[in-house]
Amino acid sequence: MQTDLVAALDIGGTKIAGALVDGHGRILVRAQRPTPAQQDGETVMRAVEEVFGELGGDPRWGGATAVGIGSAGPVDASAGTVSPVNIHGWRGFPLVERVRAVTGGLPVELIGDGVAITAAEHWQGAARGHDNALCMVVSTGVGGGLVLGGKLHAGPTGNAGHIGHISVDLDGDACPCGARGCVERIASGPNIARRALENGWLPGPDGDTSAAAVAAAAQAGDPVAVASFERAAQALAAGIAATATLVEIDIAVIGGGVANAGDVLFAPLRAALKNYATLSFVQDLTIAPAVMGTDAGLVGAAAAALAGRASTPAEGG
Amino acid sequence: MQTDLVAALDIGGTKIAGALVDGHGRILVRAQRPTPAQQDGETVMRAVEEVFGELGGDPRWGGATAVGIGSAGPVDASAGTVSPVNIHGWRGFPLVERVRAVTGGLPVELIGDGVAITAAEHWQGAARGHDNALCMVVSTGVGGGLVLGGKLHAGPTGNAGHIGHISVDLDGDACPCGARGCVERIASGPNIARRALENGWLPGPDGDTSAAAVAAAAQAGDPVAVASFERAAQALAAGIAATATLVEIDIAVIGGGVANAGDVLFAPLRAALKNYATLSFVQDLTIAPAVMGTDAGLVGAAAAALAGRASTPAEGG
Repeated sequence: MQTDLVAALDIGGTKIAGALVDGHGRILVRAQRPTPAQQDGETVMRAVEEVFGELGGDPRWGGATAVGIGSAGPVDASAGTVSPVNIHGWRGFPLVERVRAVTGGLPVELIGDGVAITAAEHWQGAARGHDNALCMVVSTGVGGGLVLGGKLHAGPTGNAGHIGHISVDLDGDACPCGARGCVERIASGPNIARRALENGWLPGPDGDTSAAAVAAAAQAGDPVAVASFERAAQALAAGIAATATLVEIDIAVIGGGVANAGDVLFAPLRAALKNYATLSFVQDLTIAPAVMGTDAGLVGAAAAALAGRASTPAEGG
Repeated sequence: MQTDLVAALDIGGTKIAGALVDGHGRILVRAQRPTPAQQDGETVMRAVEEVFGELGGDPRWGGATAVGIGSAGPVDASAGTVSPVNIHGWRGFPLVERVRAVTGGLPVELIGDGVAITAAEHWQGAARGHDNALCMVVSTGVGGGLVLGGKLHAGPTGNAGHIGHISVDLDGDACPCGARGCVERIASGPNIARRALENGWLPGPDGDTSAAAVAAAAQAGDPVAVASFERAAQALAAGIAATATLVEIDIAVIGGGVANAGDVLFAPLRAALKNYATLSFVQDLTIAPAVMGTDAGLVGAAAAALAGRASTPAEGG
């Protein structure tokens, strides 16, 4: 119904996407611009304004009652600002205030991109019906979000669920975040590829050294490629088990490019999980692939906007 | 006031304590029995019944409207059962049902002991006024609990906050829980003492090889003793940082025997935390010593009982 219409904005280092989304999570119209990630903050904001300008041309725009933003992090929902690592012109950028101005004063909900994807999987995807869930993206980085007690747990600043930067190897390799042995430092796509190359894996004639190429080699039985995925799986298992042990979850949903490796990742992940999720209350934890695909960020931002109006998808959709 | 009176039960491997507690967290009367930890389940239950028998002799007993139980874990709040590692006769023991019967049908709330201590610190202690907190006990084991969004986060089974058994060293030493490199395996009192002895620390003429003796040696400048506490602090820091990164907390409260070492633990802990709590939204995390002492379990169980009646201490006390 028209009263459940919200606008969604998905801010990434590559693209800025916007949409009008209805109360069932259906995308009615969308707009997109490349992110001018190397340019100044106002130039990036102009791309956001163009996205809203295009959405505003749709006759249904007038029915939108709120805006949800899922942004690359870190974000600060309490201050309404974003500082995406890969968007250099935005440091403490007052995105909530600026979007409110652009949209004629609509209420704005800001969450991190991992939280947005979690909202989408919980509303429409693999975590649907689970009151306690971890959703992750394993790709160039490793991100995530949490559902606790049936509700999205964004945390005061909107960053909760940052599983990529918990240390599972306290003496391990230095991570760009400043810590050591973070899950992302071991399990991200670039680190899977780096480790395979360091241990003697040779790419094919096309010279492709991506994690996808390592996955193909692992699928074909290359032991070094297999071992690199097994190590990533071990780190993911330790991180997922830590999360379950800390907050109690019954499902971990994993998406992102690295998850496309399928059993090359999921088989050793399920095996390793048994080694780390040992306490009685975490032993039944399920691992499932994500299902929401590339629209997850938009759908999740819409879910946050709907929840922010005290009409949560879980209760009202 | 009389209507806020609840009964509290604290089940540990050494003692079983009970109390009548008022709505301000004051203990009005208490009773205690040693835990017959090596005996059969009914013998342990008789100790519980004796505690309630003694409390029932108090004229104020009739005003008690609920019972809160904090028990050594694991517990299963959803099933109403407990299986404390150190109480051999209780495996899946239906403690909630049995206590309900003993108390004439009062509503019973069951939580783990780490969660109970957290409830106490949040209600009356060092985490008071903090909406997002981790409270820990570092002692023979390492336990904990969480406050999220202003409320105790016990999890569906009452075990959330089990920080002692998250792995911060995925290739590390085997832990009795079955995993490797758990926080407890590195940072508990017995492990602090073991590591000091293995690395050449010599106890004094009294032969005391406890963590307290290692703390005294560290205080006096013994480098091996200092190093053992530093390693424990590093593991605690990695675990606390992981918790903050996953759920967003602004304070970590630490109690238990090992925390009595004071600056021998807290100074390296605060230093190590800077190395692991690196993301913007966790950098302001505060570390504070617990203040509730040995009554924390009883006061926290009472808090759970009050909260279970939908009259939470945070809202109504």
